[in-house]
Amino acid sequence: MCEGASSTGATPSEEMNGTGNLMDFLDEPFPDVSTYEDFHTIDWLREKSRDTDRHRKITTKSKESYWELIKSLLDAWSGWVVMLLIGMLTGTLAGVIDLAVDWMTDLKEGVCLSAFYYSHEQCCWTSNETTFDDRDKCPQWQKWAELMTGHSEGAGAYVLNYFLYVLWALLFSFLAVSLVRVFAPYACGSGIPEIKTILSGFIIRGYLGKWTLLIKTVTLVLAVSSGLSLGKEGPLVHVACCCGNLFCSLFSKYSKNEGKRREVLSAAAAAGVSVAFGAPIGGVLFSLEEVSYYFPLKTLWRSFFAALVAAFTLRAINPFGNSRLVLFYVEYHTPWYMAELVPFILLGVFGGLWGTLFIRGNIAWCRRRKTTLLGKYPVLEVIVITGITAVLAFPNPYTRRSTSELISELFNDCGALESSQLCDYVNNPNMSRPVDDIPDRPAGPGVYSALWQLALALIFKIVITIFTFGMKIPSGLFIPSMAVGAIAGRIVGIAVEQMAYHHHDWIIFKNWCRPGADCVTPGLYAMVGAAACLGGVTRMTVSLVVIMFELTGGLEYIVPLMAAAVTSKWVADAFGKEGIYESHIQLNGYPYLDVRDEFTHRTLATDVMRPRRSEPPLAVLTQDSTTVEDVETLIKDTDYNGFPVVVSRESERLIGFVQRRELTVAIKTARQKQDGVVSSSVVYFTEDNPQVAEACDPQPLKLRRILNLSPFTVTDHTPMETVVDIFRKLGLRQCLVTRSGRLLGIITKKDVLRHMAQMMNQDPESIMFN
Amino acid sequence: MCEGASSTGATPSEEMNGTGNLMDFLDEPFPDVSTYEDFHTIDWLREKSRDTDRHRKITTKSKESYWELIKSLLDAWSGWVVMLLIGMLTGTLAGVIDLAVDWMTDLKEGVCLSAFYYSHEQCCWTSNETTFDDRDKCPQWQKWAELMTGHSEGAGAYVLNYFLYVLWALLFSFLAVSLVRVFAPYACGSGIPEIKTILSGFIIRGYLGKWTLLIKTVTLVLAVSSGLSLGKEGPLVHVACCCGNLFCSLFSKYSKNEGKRREVLSAAAAAGVSVAFGAPIGGVLFSLEEVSYYFPLKTLWRSFFAALVAAFTLRAINPFGNSRLVLFYVEYHTPWYMAELVPFILLGVFGGLWGTLFIRGNIAWCRRRKTTLLGKYPVLEVIVITGITAVLAFPNPYTRRSTSELISELFNDCGALESSQLCDYVNNPNMSRPVDDIPDRPAGPGVYSALWQLALALIFKIVITIFTFGMKIPSGLFIPSMAVGAIAGRIVGIAVEQMAYHHHDWIIFKNWCRPGADCVTPGLYAMVGAAACLGGVTRMTVSLVVIMFELTGGLEYIVPLMAAAVTSKWVADAFGKEGIYESHIQLNGYPYLDVRDEFTHRTLATDVMRPRRSEPPLAVLTQDSTTVEDVETLIKDTDYNGFPVVVSRESERLIGFVQRRELTVAIKTARQKQDGVVSSSVVYFTEDNPQVAEACDPQPLKLRRILNLSPFTVTDHTPMETVVDIFRKLGLRQCLVTRSGRLLGIITKKDVLRHMAQMMNQDPESIMFN
Repeated sequence: MCEGASSTGATPSEEMNGTGNLMDFLDEPFPDVSTYEDFHTIDWLREKSRDTDRHRKITTKSKESYWELIKSLLDAWSGWVVMLLIGMLTGTLAGVIDLAVDWMTDLKEGVCLSAFYYSHEQCCWTSNETTFDDRDKCPQWQKWAELMTGHSEGAGAYVLNYFLYVLWALLFSFLAVSLVRVFAPYACGSGIPEIKTILSGFIIRGYLGKWTLLIKTVTLVLAVSSGLSLGKEGPLVHVACCCGNLFCSLFSKYSKNEGKRREVLSAAAAAGVSVAFGAPIGGVLFSLEEVSYYFPLKTLWRSFFAALVAAFTLRAINPFGNSRLVLFYVEYHTPWYMAELVPFILLGVFGGLWGTLFIRGNIAWCRRRKTTLLGKYPVLEVIVITGITAVLAFPNPYTRRSTSELISELFNDCGALESSQLCDYVNNPNMSRPVDDIPDRPAGPGVYSALWQLALALIFKIVITIFTFGMKIPSGLFIPSMAVGAIAGRIVGIAVEQMAYHHHDWIIFKNWCRPGADCVTPGLYAMVGAAACLGGVTRMTVSLVVIMFELTGGLEYIVPLMAAAVTSKWVADAFGKEGIYESHIQLNGYPYLDVRDEFTHRTLATDVMRPRRSEPPLAVLTQDSTTVEDVETLIKDTDYNGFPVVVSRESERLIGFVQRRELTVAIKTARQKQDGVVSSSVVYFTEDNPQVAEACDPQPLKLRRILNLSPFTVTDHTPMETVVDIFRKLGLRQCLVTRSGRLLGIITKKDVLRHMAQMMNQDPESIMFN
Repeated sequence: MCEGASSTGATPSEEMNGTGNLMDFLDEPFPDVSTYEDFHTIDWLREKSRDTDRHRKITTKSKESYWELIKSLLDAWSGWVVMLLIGMLTGTLAGVIDLAVDWMTDLKEGVCLSAFYYSHEQCCWTSNETTFDDRDKCPQWQKWAELMTGHSEGAGAYVLNYFLYVLWALLFSFLAVSLVRVFAPYACGSGIPEIKTILSGFIIRGYLGKWTLLIKTVTLVLAVSSGLSLGKEGPLVHVACCCGNLFCSLFSKYSKNEGKRREVLSAAAAAGVSVAFGAPIGGVLFSLEEVSYYFPLKTLWRSFFAALVAAFTLRAINPFGNSRLVLFYVEYHTPWYMAELVPFILLGVFGGLWGTLFIRGNIAWCRRRKTTLLGKYPVLEVIVITGITAVLAFPNPYTRRSTSELISELFNDCGALESSQLCDYVNNPNMSRPVDDIPDRPAGPGVYSALWQLALALIFKIVITIFTFGMKIPSGLFIPSMAVGAIAGRIVGIAVEQMAYHHHDWIIFKNWCRPGADCVTPGLYAMVGAAACLGGVTRMTVSLVVIMFELTGGLEYIVPLMAAAVTSKWVADAFGKEGIYESHIQLNGYPYLDVRDEFTHRTLATDVMRPRRSEPPLAVLTQDSTTVEDVETLIKDTDYNGFPVVVSRESERLIGFVQRRELTVAIKTARQKQDGVVSSSVVYFTEDNPQVAEACDPQPLKLRRILNLSPFTVTDHTPMETVVDIFRKLGLRQCLVTRSGRLLGIITKKDVLRHMAQMMNQDPESIMFN
């Protein structure tokens, strides 16, 4: 007590040293105790204060010599260096993945004779015999049937091509799932639910390891090339985070501090989205809105830097060969009209419904996979789904090609030079306008047959995606979701366009669509549909609109996109608040405290804390009456992360909290190194030196050093909504409950999560639609 | 105690009612006590829990009848309605301001004869006698001298124009300062420092009131038109926030909850920047990065909505007559080259130095204004500065026009049709290229004279801006800062361009600048310079780059902008961590807890808490031994916001905290309404009903109802860095300090701020450059 009182007069640093001057035997206590165990939660406050200590030490040292000054400057710059490295590696990997996917996707259909490692497009680019009209046809590129039998047409060639297409697909997916199974089980899935959980302060060892990075990169290429209904966007975020983790290990500032490491990972996630779509700002907002938990302003700026470096590295590699940064570059020539908001909003409703259907279906299927025999045969599952996908996909030209090519074509506006089936309109022979401003025209037979094929593709994609996401291969759902929306949107767009063409005089078209004008852009509908479906599945809002904005590069189309995104979010939210990532987090039981869940129940801390009434009392230590043996028994019998220390069992007045790990290490070290510490030694957490009554008594063990004197406490009357807020904002691991200084119980993050889940299920409102 | 123990079994709502079931006389306690006094800090946690209560009430009621359900839906939608209204009003006001400024700025030079309310540009647009080459000359537009004397040329006309230019400027600024003085003193300045403070939870009554809105809008037009070196961007944020506050008062959800109100204001700030630059995404990021304190994800999405609505409303008004959304639309035709990064980084250094110079100079001048006689004559000050500005500005064509026109011209790339003096290059007569891709050419005499004029304008702007910002008229500093940077950048750009033209063979140009190529775009340099200077003054980073990105609309130029912004931030930070807004907050002594300041000192809660050793003990109430008279004396003698309640003066065990306002109201009401409550009545904060020993004893006053049973506590050993973190993240107003349940003292937000300032001054590092 006296030392505490004297502290007001002493300078701060003296005060701190005062605590340390106790005659403890440990100079640098437990270098290892900062690390956490696997599947445990970190203590953000503690990590932060450890970083401040480190920083303080470096600043003090830097005044001593020039060498230390340089070291401190290097330390200050290491954050930027890590960002640069992450950006460069992520961009490079994304470029390599794009190139490899391009090549391997085409390999399913044929091969380039001039150089086997050319994709179809590259093959015909380099050829001199290609005309502009037949860009896709050049003698160097041969389909398998042509190469093997010499015939490129006819039923035999078709069947052979079909067979080889399925075979390649099966080979790719078998390779992918085998690699995942054997080398890196964590490489499967999209990875975003796990990354969200990790960023919120959970430890999953190896999830962001080197093996995962390598295997995920390789298997991602295989999985996408196999033609399964999955995308590379989510996994790219995982790959980027693996890069981030890799570079963290170069700097002790990040590798030794789980809090700082998570700042780097947030930025890496931004870089991942940045290269996935070529949208750096969207990537930063995605990291902010969707993935990150703790996002200080410094991280915002660094994320932006990493995202830009990644985007420019990718552009330098130029995998799409068009020096565009974005995945789907589009340019529309006509504005949109107010009346079009009706179909846009309908697309939003469709997106919301699709989101709900997908989440429900996928979660039900994944639950079945977890609980039934199905989960025992992941390889077989992948093979079967790949087989079904390939067999059904080949006959339809819109599902045969890669999904991103499909989306790209659906987004496109039909220019005069477009040769696609979707642009097969009946041209007016007298037309003499500039090529970009083509008036609405009646649809030709190509468009009608395309519509049928698209409708079939839509059904196919909807069904197969539900079963694909969650298999034991890397699989993102951005691209499949966008494909569903783009197909639906294009169909609606063509319908509106034809309606407007044939019925100029209808009142709804009269005001804005004169004959001969270019009123409706079906590609824009596809884009709006894609945004709606993606929004329905992920519940992204701002980042989604910004990514789409970066694709089109014009503010013009933000209103349709926003209208659709908001509608789809509202519709989907009406059926259940959680997006696909949160649903998977729940399915897997990760301890994730969502920032967006509002806790509005009137429970108090006392309802949540343990021990409950029927349970045995809380495991506590006393400050000066527990023996080493007692402590060891307590450690052996319980698995709590730490123990509160009280004055005495009678008064139960709290004085601090001691971590299990630190306690274990301290006792072990003391038993080995300190003479006279035996099982009957008393453990002292008090400030002043204990009085040893007789010489024959065992030596006391003084452990005040490892006692956290400022444990976080709330009173038993604190509303749970405040407790939840505190846990969320301060990133606590546990919190002690007291009343007038008397310790009543403890609330851990898991207790909070359990309570929130309970309350959610009790609430009739939130399960209204379930 | 027993009730607390029984609570575990009871359902949550019973438990809460249990506390309320005490036989208190107040059913709906103190509807008014939620409001705060002027210049006080709000308690975020309390506001939040009040909103949750409200929400809970509405949700419960909504199950009762359809009418209540509709009301609850309307309540849920009111947030979006407020955003829509804010966006529309902000956009409209911005449009009106733009139009009025345009007209009045031109009024200083002349008048349109066909319609006096036309600006110069509008006047000549509507004229049929205007040719493309002489866009600016038409007979309808007459300069004052021409109108009065009939002569448009000659010394006499020049002097007359000069005289009238100065006269109009003086008139406008006199009107502006008088209106501010008489009607709305809060309308002066940029408003951003105050808005930052308000958003962090401070109350400044009337700062966002209707009068401020009206007067700020009107005086902003006058101030900008007077030709002073100030911009409309900062004040537009203030205007937008006033709109936000105005619409808050329509909905009790926002008007009665200071926390919710601040969410709306954050979004309004985004709308303000959105219309100031035509950059909605940049606006949202500005609000997030620069202005806001508490920015939940819901606010992000709503801010984005408000920013978009505002931008589209502005575009519908179309004040610039070009249907462009952005203030400075630019389009460059050539990429930039690696070697150009050197001048870009130099511009960054210049920006950082300018930022430092401006902040130091302006703060010194503002301090002088506060402390000397100068502050007594604000009108005179404005008149004198306007006079000096107008007299010096008129002779130089680059300072005579409005600053935003100047920036616009400096940003521009010289196309073939550009008639500006800055584009007076010596053309190669054989040139036959497309107009957009003009090779580098030698500068003509016009460029050289422009360079001189620009250099003079640069010095003039640098000096005059320091004295202008902070006068008693609305004044933003975005535009003047950007102007300084744009001038410097253009000068550097032309220098590099001419160097590259004349010295193709130099090793630095050899690789990328062949003769006849268009290598250097001086406009880009102007843009980079503007970003650097704005960054140096405000220390914005991400939002700055995004705003600039939205101006150019291409990712191409993000790297130069980032390089300059980062350099300027680093250079400026080396001379002092604070941007202009933080400096003004400090100058005015607002209680602002900056999220970005990292507190790294090793002090403990015990060093900061009051009472200090020499001070009298803490003013506390006891739970069952204080009389009404004691309480009234305590309230009279002290001005604390609230008082801790302890078990007894001996044990000092904390049981709760009671707000001063609630205590005052409760005692006053009890004295009026409750029989038997007299000065000697004992105030009880205990749970169980007090035993009144004898019938003649005065009636006890039970006040447990107003006792906050979950006050926030930390132990005396808690490091201050944790305390600061808690204050920041939870938005606390005060925090009690305990040791083992014994109350030791209290820490308020002001104590924290004072301590942080003290530590900052002690630290030799941070004042190294001061």
